[in-house]
Amino acid sequence: MADRIKVRKEDDIIGWYNQVLLNSEVVDFSDIKGFAVYRPYGYEMWESSMYYLDSVFKERGVKNAYFPLLIPESLLTREKEHVKHFNPEVAWVTMGGDSLLDERLAIRPTSETIMYRSYSKWIQSYRDLPMLINQWNTMVRWETKETRFFLRGRENLWQEGHCVFATEEEAVSNAEDMIRVYKKFSEEVLAFPVLMGFKSEGEKFAGAVRTYTIEAVLPNNFASQVGTSHYLGQNFSKPFDVKFLDRGNRSQYAYQTSWGVSARAIGVMILIHGDNSGLVLPPSIAPIQAVVVPIMNGKSGESVEAYAGEVYGALKALGIKVLLDDRREYSPGWKFNEYEMKGVPIRVEVGEKEVKERKVSLKTRFNGSKDEVPFDAISTIPDRLADIQREMFERAEALMKSALTVETDRGEFVKKLKEGKYIVKAAWCGNPMCETKIGDETGAVSRMIPMTDDELLDKKCIFCGQEAEHNAYFGQSY
Amino acid sequence: MADRIKVRKEDDIIGWYNQVLLNSEVVDFSDIKGFAVYRPYGYEMWESSMYYLDSVFKERGVKNAYFPLLIPESLLTREKEHVKHFNPEVAWVTMGGDSLLDERLAIRPTSETIMYRSYSKWIQSYRDLPMLINQWNTMVRWETKETRFFLRGRENLWQEGHCVFATEEEAVSNAEDMIRVYKKFSEEVLAFPVLMGFKSEGEKFAGAVRTYTIEAVLPNNFASQVGTSHYLGQNFSKPFDVKFLDRGNRSQYAYQTSWGVSARAIGVMILIHGDNSGLVLPPSIAPIQAVVVPIMNGKSGESVEAYAGEVYGALKALGIKVLLDDRREYSPGWKFNEYEMKGVPIRVEVGEKEVKERKVSLKTRFNGSKDEVPFDAISTIPDRLADIQREMFERAEALMKSALTVETDRGEFVKKLKEGKYIVKAAWCGNPMCETKIGDETGAVSRMIPMTDDELLDKKCIFCGQEAEHNAYFGQSY
Repeated sequence: MADRIKVRKEDDIIGWYNQVLLNSEVVDFSDIKGFAVYRPYGYEMWESSMYYLDSVFKERGVKNAYFPLLIPESLLTREKEHVKHFNPEVAWVTMGGDSLLDERLAIRPTSETIMYRSYSKWIQSYRDLPMLINQWNTMVRWETKETRFFLRGRENLWQEGHCVFATEEEAVSNAEDMIRVYKKFSEEVLAFPVLMGFKSEGEKFAGAVRTYTIEAVLPNNFASQVGTSHYLGQNFSKPFDVKFLDRGNRSQYAYQTSWGVSARAIGVMILIHGDNSGLVLPPSIAPIQAVVVPIMNGKSGESVEAYAGEVYGALKALGIKVLLDDRREYSPGWKFNEYEMKGVPIRVEVGEKEVKERKVSLKTRFNGSKDEVPFDAISTIPDRLADIQREMFERAEALMKSALTVETDRGEFVKKLKEGKYIVKAAWCGNPMCETKIGDETGAVSRMIPMTDDELLDKKCIFCGQEAEHNAYFGQSY
Repeated sequence: MADRIKVRKEDDIIGWYNQVLLNSEVVDFSDIKGFAVYRPYGYEMWESSMYYLDSVFKERGVKNAYFPLLIPESLLTREKEHVKHFNPEVAWVTMGGDSLLDERLAIRPTSETIMYRSYSKWIQSYRDLPMLINQWNTMVRWETKETRFFLRGRENLWQEGHCVFATEEEAVSNAEDMIRVYKKFSEEVLAFPVLMGFKSEGEKFAGAVRTYTIEAVLPNNFASQVGTSHYLGQNFSKPFDVKFLDRGNRSQYAYQTSWGVSARAIGVMILIHGDNSGLVLPPSIAPIQAVVVPIMNGKSGESVEAYAGEVYGALKALGIKVLLDDRREYSPGWKFNEYEMKGVPIRVEVGEKEVKERKVSLKTRFNGSKDEVPFDAISTIPDRLADIQREMFERAEALMKSALTVETDRGEFVKKLKEGKYIVKAAWCGNPMCETKIGDETGAVSRMIPMTDDELLDKKCIFCGQEAEHNAYFGQSY
């Protein structure tokens, strides 16, 4: 219920976020820091995400597989950049039953190393390529910072795709294709826009040649990485011996990609759309798209109940995910609060008046608008849901635009980043040392460099004054 | 290819099984004992199983959720029978990054303890019941015995359903309903029959009041448990404080069930149906139900290729999972062997003769029969697949029947169990001590006690001579 949220979104976005998540029964704490319980209402959103993405992957010929949860330490440490990054955040299994193990086993922080070990056995010739494999699983990264539901957990629900190609060209094209898939997922399913580009040398994935990223902008103007797609070149195929005989019978190292999106996307969606009454869900991800609430009093009860059933049946026949809540133990007012908290896009009220006039009263969650339509107009509700989806995206797009700014003055650049009120675009040298200094001074780092050519805002780097390489977006982030 | 299997099924079933699994690309070894890699062709069978079962669960109102991978030791040890059984086979996380943890964390061997901890928070009143939750995940049990693909792994793919009810009656009914769901899944999807019943006191799940089970009989007449459903009574609700206020506002402990099926079912299916040429898959689980192989030579190539495409299109339009293998790098003979190894139910051959006569040649994998049908008769192939599914079940049923025997003589009983050539039904006292002695003397234990009333084969226990409680099935098992 609305009064269970004691913090306003505009005052303390993270405090608000936690209260919304707990009260809407999306997630819960477990006894271990950073290990969330995904309750049915929250998990169902992840299931819808999986359903959408899985079919897009399969259209591209990607097959699902499952690789072990545990990775021997010796395997994890084979690619040097990779291990340097991941080692400090690995959870280690050291005992099986009562016995100490000979070698420590890492719970997968990501599966490059264990998958490519298999790939080197499975790939013999060009005929085995491309190899396109994905897995849906959870990964564990032992965060020492404060953890947050969805955004920064120690255990995280995600998918990781790992593809192998005979040529660099195919691999780069796959990595770029997949980041576009993630962008479309954010826009069309989760109804928020993203900035798409690639990461700086300092921020890219450990072991990648290039990391493509999509970044969302949260209502507090922080950025959040929603999905990444890595072109790995031959950085893993060499240490893991992923080779193939080409048509000329020559042995070649393969070119690889890996790409992943996690349930963080759900958290970002909730942060962007939610309000002080709770979740506000886009119809494409909502576990319940419409809820029918009968308002019964006294003798009209039976006819209202019957009519509510008829309305429910009509909505169901249209393929809408609809719930009829005719429980007598709860009052209509309780239900109104409950489904507002749960972010159900459309509430359908049916009372004595509606029965008499053979109509329904509708309330739209995202903008609070109310109207009445005749029973026969129920057939237009799918269009109404599509309109809500589009309008929610447009509202989120306007929000993102208001957070973006361009800067050519060093002082202003530093000031804006420190305040954390903008995502700032500026000309930049791209040097990791320069990025470290920006981080030290402002707490912000680069979020991404646009993929498409972009006219340089300045010939010189906004921060160090060296020659600018490209424009980049900088900002605070979770 | 067939010659990659160097062991005959009738000579060494486990040697044969491993070679089939590896050569058909169903699974592979990883570097850690008991942690299999599920390759796309194998994982797809598990995906089909999940798809079938998940929709049956959802029809019953069960919702999916996700609970943490790791369980604090103090939580795992709260139910005493449970911990006694599972503790010796737990994989322990003791380090996060470079730090030693304050408390050891178990990788879930099963999730009763962590889920019921949450349930005790979520359930307040009768209005919150029943609570019907399932999760799809993997569980880890640190087997010290020899591990086997699917049948006995350290990491296992499975689902675990955990339900809470206000009454004993509802809980028992749920546990019985779910074991019937598993039976139907075995029969209708995997095409093998099972024995259904409940486990003896000595063999039941640690913490259960009653464990329902389905048991398959393998071609070597060993039994294998395929799925279990536990009525937990209040054994967990008491230590985990899963209470609710009933309609009279009295606080009551709830009644619980848990039920699970793992990818072991896939292994059992492969053991039952496979032959010396490789996998033999029932159409309902086969990733590829029909494969079209064009046989091109010289100038006829183009017309054969075009016709093969037409045949493929006709099969696809019928909703059949069909593959057209028109790769020129492989010969028809190589492809024949490959798809026999992969157990594809129907092979469709298309050559010069088929083009001329506008027909197709069909080969049925499970019985090796061949015939030709005119192009227009392709529309009957869905019926043919249904026939194959039924006939494979009937063949497996005959195999199971031949393995069952009834015994009333103690000497014969012991001899038959030692030989391991039968599943023996006999009158039994049900005493765990007696069962331990049977195990010591024969290596076999009871597999199940029939759920339906069964006339006692004898008034006295076949082994100890005390009063018989019920008939039971005994046998060797994996």
